[in-house]
Amino acid sequence: MNDSAYALFVQQQTDRGIDLEQVKTRLKALKIETPSWGYGDSGTRFKVFQQVGVPRNPFEKFEDAAQVHRVTGICPSVAIHIPWDKVEDYKQLQQHAASLGLTIGAINPNLFQDDDYIFGSLCNSNQAIRKKATEHMLECVAVARETSSSLLSLWLADGTNYPGQASIRQRKHWLLEALNEVYQALEPQMRLLIEYKFFEPAFYHTDLGDWGMAYNTALKLGKQAQVLVDTGHHAQGTNVEQIVAYLLDEQCLGGFHFNSRKYADDDLIVGAINPYELFLIFYQILDALSDAEAGVRQTAENIAYMIDQSHCIEPKIPAMIRSVLNVQTQYAKALLINLAEVRAAQEKQDVLAAENAVRTAFELDVTPLLQVVREEMGVPVDPMAAYLASGYAEKIRARGKGGASW
Amino acid sequence: MNDSAYALFVQQQTDRGIDLEQVKTRLKALKIETPSWGYGDSGTRFKVFQQVGVPRNPFEKFEDAAQVHRVTGICPSVAIHIPWDKVEDYKQLQQHAASLGLTIGAINPNLFQDDDYIFGSLCNSNQAIRKKATEHMLECVAVARETSSSLLSLWLADGTNYPGQASIRQRKHWLLEALNEVYQALEPQMRLLIEYKFFEPAFYHTDLGDWGMAYNTALKLGKQAQVLVDTGHHAQGTNVEQIVAYLLDEQCLGGFHFNSRKYADDDLIVGAINPYELFLIFYQILDALSDAEAGVRQTAENIAYMIDQSHCIEPKIPAMIRSVLNVQTQYAKALLINLAEVRAAQEKQDVLAAENAVRTAFELDVTPLLQVVREEMGVPVDPMAAYLASGYAEKIRARGKGGASW
Amino acid sequence: MNDSAYALFVQQQTDRGIDLEQVKTRLKALKIETPSWGYGDSGTRFKVFQQVGVPRNPFEKFEDAAQVHRVTGICPSVAIHIPWDKVEDYKQLQQHAASLGLTIGAINPNLFQDDDYIFGSLCNSNQAIRKKATEHMLECVAVARETSSSLLSLWLADGTNYPGQASIRQRKHWLLEALNEVYQALEPQMRLLIEYKFFEPAFYHTDLGDWGMAYNTALKLGKQAQVLVDTGHHAQGTNVEQIVAYLLDEQCLGGFHFNSRKYADDDLIVGAINPYELFLIFYQILDALSDAEAGVRQTAENIAYMIDQSHCIEPKIPAMIRSVLNVQTQYAKALLINLAEVRAAQEKQDVLAAENAVRTAFELDVTPLLQVVREEMGVPVDPMAAYLASGYAEKIRARGKGGASW
Amino acid sequence: MNDSAYALFVQQQTDRGIDLEQVKTRLKALKIETPSWGYGDSGTRFKVFQQVGVPRNPFEKFEDAAQVHRVTGICPSVAIHIPWDKVEDYKQLQQHAASLGLTIGAINPNLFQDDDYIFGSLCNSNQAIRKKATEHMLECVAVARETSSSLLSLWLADGTNYPGQASIRQRKHWLLEALNEVYQALEPQMRLLIEYKFFEPAFYHTDLGDWGMAYNTALKLGKQAQVLVDTGHHAQGTNVEQIVAYLLDEQCLGGFHFNSRKYADDDLIVGAINPYELFLIFYQILDALSDAEAGVRQTAENIAYMIDQSHCIEPKIPAMIRSVLNVQTQYAKALLINLAEVRAAQEKQDVLAAENAVRTAFELDVTPLLQVVREEMGVPVDPMAAYLASGYAEKIRARGKGGASW
Repeated sequence: MNDSAYALFVQQQTDRGIDLEQVKTRLKALKIETPSWGYGDSGTRFKVFQQVGVPRNPFEKFEDAAQVHRVTGICPSVAIHIPWDKVEDYKQLQQHAASLGLTIGAINPNLFQDDDYIFGSLCNSNQAIRKKATEHMLECVAVARETSSSLLSLWLADGTNYPGQASIRQRKHWLLEALNEVYQALEPQMRLLIEYKFFEPAFYHTDLGDWGMAYNTALKLGKQAQVLVDTGHHAQGTNVEQIVAYLLDEQCLGGFHFNSRKYADDDLIVGAINPYELFLIFYQILDALSDAEAGVRQTAENIAYMIDQSHCIEPKIPAMIRSVLNVQTQYAKALLINLAEVRAAQEKQDVLAAENAVRTAFELDVTPLLQVVREEMGVPVDPMAAYLASGYAEKIRARGKGGASW
Repeated sequence: MNDSAYALFVQQQTDRGIDLEQVKTRLKALKIETPSWGYGDSGTRFKVFQQVGVPRNPFEKFEDAAQVHRVTGICPSVAIHIPWDKVEDYKQLQQHAASLGLTIGAINPNLFQDDDYIFGSLCNSNQAIRKKATEHMLECVAVARETSSSLLSLWLADGTNYPGQASIRQRKHWLLEALNEVYQALEPQMRLLIEYKFFEPAFYHTDLGDWGMAYNTALKLGKQAQVLVDTGHHAQGTNVEQIVAYLLDEQCLGGFHFNSRKYADDDLIVGAINPYELFLIFYQILDALSDAEAGVRQTAENIAYMIDQSHCIEPKIPAMIRSVLNVQTQYAKALLINLAEVRAAQEKQDVLAAENAVRTAFELDVTPLLQVVREEMGVPVDPMAAYLASGYAEKIRARGKGGASW
Repeated sequence: MNDSAYALFVQQQTDRGIDLEQVKTRLKALKIETPSWGYGDSGTRFKVFQQVGVPRNPFEKFEDAAQVHRVTGICPSVAIHIPWDKVEDYKQLQQHAASLGLTIGAINPNLFQDDDYIFGSLCNSNQAIRKKATEHMLECVAVARETSSSLLSLWLADGTNYPGQASIRQRKHWLLEALNEVYQALEPQMRLLIEYKFFEPAFYHTDLGDWGMAYNTALKLGKQAQVLVDTGHHAQGTNVEQIVAYLLDEQCLGGFHFNSRKYADDDLIVGAINPYELFLIFYQILDALSDAEAGVRQTAENIAYMIDQSHCIEPKIPAMIRSVLNVQTQYAKALLINLAEVRAAQEKQDVLAAENAVRTAFELDVTPLLQVVREEMGVPVDPMAAYLASGYAEKIRARGKGGASW
Repeated sequence: MNDSAYALFVQQQTDRGIDLEQVKTRLKALKIETPSWGYGDSGTRFKVFQQVGVPRNPFEKFEDAAQVHRVTGICPSVAIHIPWDKVEDYKQLQQHAASLGLTIGAINPNLFQDDDYIFGSLCNSNQAIRKKATEHMLECVAVARETSSSLLSLWLADGTNYPGQASIRQRKHWLLEALNEVYQALEPQMRLLIEYKFFEPAFYHTDLGDWGMAYNTALKLGKQAQVLVDTGHHAQGTNVEQIVAYLLDEQCLGGFHFNSRKYADDDLIVGAINPYELFLIFYQILDALSDAEAGVRQTAENIAYMIDQSHCIEPKIPAMIRSVLNVQTQYAKALLINLAEVRAAQEKQDVLAAENAVRTAFELDVTPLLQVVREEMGVPVDPMAAYLASGYAEKIRARGKGGASW
């Protein structure tokens, strides 16, 4: 029956004027990075529920990540977090990754868990602490160098909890000063991805509180600095896809941290709460890829797609697979937008037709397409079922409870 | 100079038609309960910064709370949390409290930190877990009985993270079933205060998600059940003072958990972000006390004012004193509203005059008033300065780091 | 090809254990009421863009509504708004409707456009104005009687713009007093649907500000009073489907005003911004229909589904068709949820499986199903295309600009 | 008694280390522009309540504005809106203004009320409409030239209501193209103030949706372009004072549209909902004035303070006076912050002391100070009482109903 479903699908899409081969090529080229910390325990401030079988060290995290790549075929790199993934010999970690078919992705510094950072890290009024934080960033550049990673992600938790607690302007200057030093240390092929966040853990002001602040910082640093959009880091109601389009147009969109949320930075499985938003983000990216000037297109091609979620009550590996599949599904749907049709309707200012041309693709069932793509990629047609049937979950139970967490 | 400041204040208020003696009587009668857990370490999901000197056990928490009462004179009771404050002999704890001039306030069960509660407690689809949670509630009733407390606070963290995860309606039934059992165990003088929360730690639905759900639950249980308003547990923009007025009118407002927030449940020092909102809450309460029917007035008289904050970066005792003083200050201002003037303007539908009559009191400086009230109560005129000068902070440094936390 | 698509669809759903005949029966039974005012001009406070061809009177509004029913087959009733649809002879309007295959649906009073209502209507401190508003409500009951309508909708715009402007509690009493009078006038078969709204046009407090206030009012009035949920009338982040489930369980959900929004009460085409939310609302309703006690099931069966949107920049009739089709589509998807599968996963507390069981249905393409249902109902397979091809839009251009508006 | 109150105040502030003479100098230098449209009728999309006595033409608007200046002494300029204030002879309008002691302030184009603008103005995909909109902007530059105004305010209502409706990137390019043309036409002393808005009237995306987009646009245009912050144009929870500090530091803060809100762009009387936020905005400005580099200080000195509110239910002139006084009050309080004390506490990372040093000033009653400042400025000590006693309200009743509105 899958054959007939796909045959029907091909005919439907061909009738709609979609170049399915191009769609499949793009689907096969999609790469989604998973985070090492997504395999360990996490939770809320009220409770971390420890799960049996979470990895006990960076090496085991890569083993788990390899399972996700094995069944999906689109997760060949793994982001690491220093010092959570600090090892004596990064080459060994890289070789371990390679032996599993993986590479080391973005290097993520940790500027929020040291006692010294109670009042900030790169923005701390204490120069010694700023220096310490800067050196940690430089250490991460070195790790990137050693692991052949070209991405340095910066999530800066710095901020204040009360009006008057600190000088917003001074901290802005300190931040730029520190990042300039880090930027100078980047290799030519490296990029610094600057994340922003609306709030938490800071509850009055966050030094990089929105895309505008991250963008302005990147502007001042140079071309190797770009903005990282975490889909859960915005005020309620924010049009995230507009920010994506805007940053793309400025050639300053570096990557994503995908997750989903209903309230704050809930860090749930990607696409679980409002899948249409994820689809619309991809619509903006594909639209840019299709008609923008060369620089914008190139920016769009180089976007780093990364998962960053904190699933507290679900088993880790399946939750990660689920997120990856949700991204793949919405990306597939967005690829089925007939952009020429959208633009023709936009040209005529036909609101309903233009909206419908976008929405139509979202309503399609892309299961037959994804199954064929997976077959052609040599991965299981149903990745989740394949994982559940693999016995891996049972195998790692031997690790017991109390593995890695943050 | 303070004398002249107060003399001037008396004249001003007398000119405004304020009965200052009544104001002072009410100020002296104000009681604010502090929470035992507010003296221990707390933090965000990203980091708990441990402080030197936090109490190591329930007894030391009461000692710290006694400092707050000593300098403010208005914090004679302390809420406890089971099992954080579980002791072998509650009579001993009560005696310890009494020896410090304190009583044990609301008993707070913990239905969120046990591994069994990963999918809920009173609403868990597993009957055995619901039973366990119910029994914990009953244990708390017993603690209340033993400690002569008349208040059982219920914050129910139960909820789900994903659409479809559980049956919202079934959980609603289970909740009512469990609470009915608890309610039957209450002594006649006890009240069950039902808290609600918009979100966190549940990120899709929270079983008691807003005042309407808490109110409806209280309605079904009986007169000894009332709603507990935590000022940080609402959607952005919610008019909290309207909920206060509404619940008062239904004789169903049981108490407050005071704290402040800018974003989500930030749990900052009370009144630090939007002091006017706190003032407006007291305006509604005083308005009800002044003109409502007897049942409403009685409800207003019995409101339990409790602090519930999670100050992560400030020293614990001073942060608590600061919250208490902020509550006292806004209450004092609200007492200076000339309600007759407000009502006369309302009667004439003079929007500007009515708004101005309320606002005028907020703009007053109540320092001279509070100083005199404190003098008359025999507590330090400047409680914060008195605490800082007391040497207590230095003394408790001997406790070291790693005290109580949640 | 449609035949093969449907054959494939039947096989897929049969394999999933779905009873497609029941699905089709339910789909054919779905009724969505459109609002007379949705055919006229509307806009924002900044501008009403007048469109050519909008109806000039209530009779023409019904003619337009008949077009929507003609192509969709599921919109047989039309809500009216008094005085916008005030006519000398309501029997004549009813006959006109009947001649078009329509009935008159909910009667909507207008309590916000008279100069007298600047400070409120049913809650105005001026007794004469409260009386006038109450009499307008009674007039609407009379219109309902005359037009054989069984629904009285109440959207109360009352509220205040400033702290202190009016007594929240007094207004609450006045409201109940007035509604009691209206309630007494209801015929036994009539229902009073009480709407609530977070804000606008009142910007400080709204007398019926959330579901809790509407529910409490309905409780006090009696069984013929129920709550009306407008999907755009909530604080950001509110879990609307939880409110739906909650009210259903209390047998107090009377109906919906469907529209969609990203920010405030944007009143856009239904399902245009977050279609998943609409699907999840239907999931809750179908879940209740499938397993709840008789009273809840009966409540669910009697829900009045109504569109209430204010499309400012789109042509009126197509925008209405689009909304109707979006509701139908999401309802069809929700009908394809395998509830037994969901419950089995819930029973096992398998979060991912339960979520997936709900989500799977959302990802289906229901086009083949809807096409067959439409064929069997004798309406166009593609309602929008049928309308656009009908020449009706061209015909009504003769009406010119300057038709009905609010 | 006022004398003794002020004497006491002087002593208190002197004890606190405040240079009261400097405070008074700054207070006397404060200028707040009122908007011509704030004197006419306005409302919500549901209803514009017409008031008796609103001005019937631009000349009468200036007469009303003169009353505000007469009693406050700090509102010497009036913003005008074209075409609402279009006159044949702008010199005549300017002379009329001058004869009333007023000047013409910012020129505000209207890019949202023409039928052509249904799908946007400067961002419309129709080139002819973009051209028309650009020419209207150029006309406003000409008006500025003619009226000796140095400010052109741009509030761009452009946006879309639906995903896919238009190309976000294309519209961004069109906007910049148009603004470049306008920018070239500016006289050297003119500034273009670029406003942003979260939403409304556009409900999906707004072309200038946040400060980042406005800032980026200003960056690309040049030094004469700056950002205009409307305090009601942000997502819920946004830290407005941080944006102020940030833009100041970039020397790109041009001015304010003051108003207040609880929900969306409610456009209420300034400071009515959260006065502390207004105070904190001034704290950031005064902090920059006190210690920043020369360019930042100069930016801070040149901020254009403008009221922009839409009071629907209050009498116009008193509501404007109230807003002006609220701004003045919060500014006065902010001037009483002991910045040296704040910075010393910040230096020591003493969170509570730093917060307290800011907050202390907010709790002061500045009435005695403002009264003396007014006396010294030769304006009424109680501006509202002076206006109400002036008989002006009665005099303008002769204008009747149906005056200017938007």
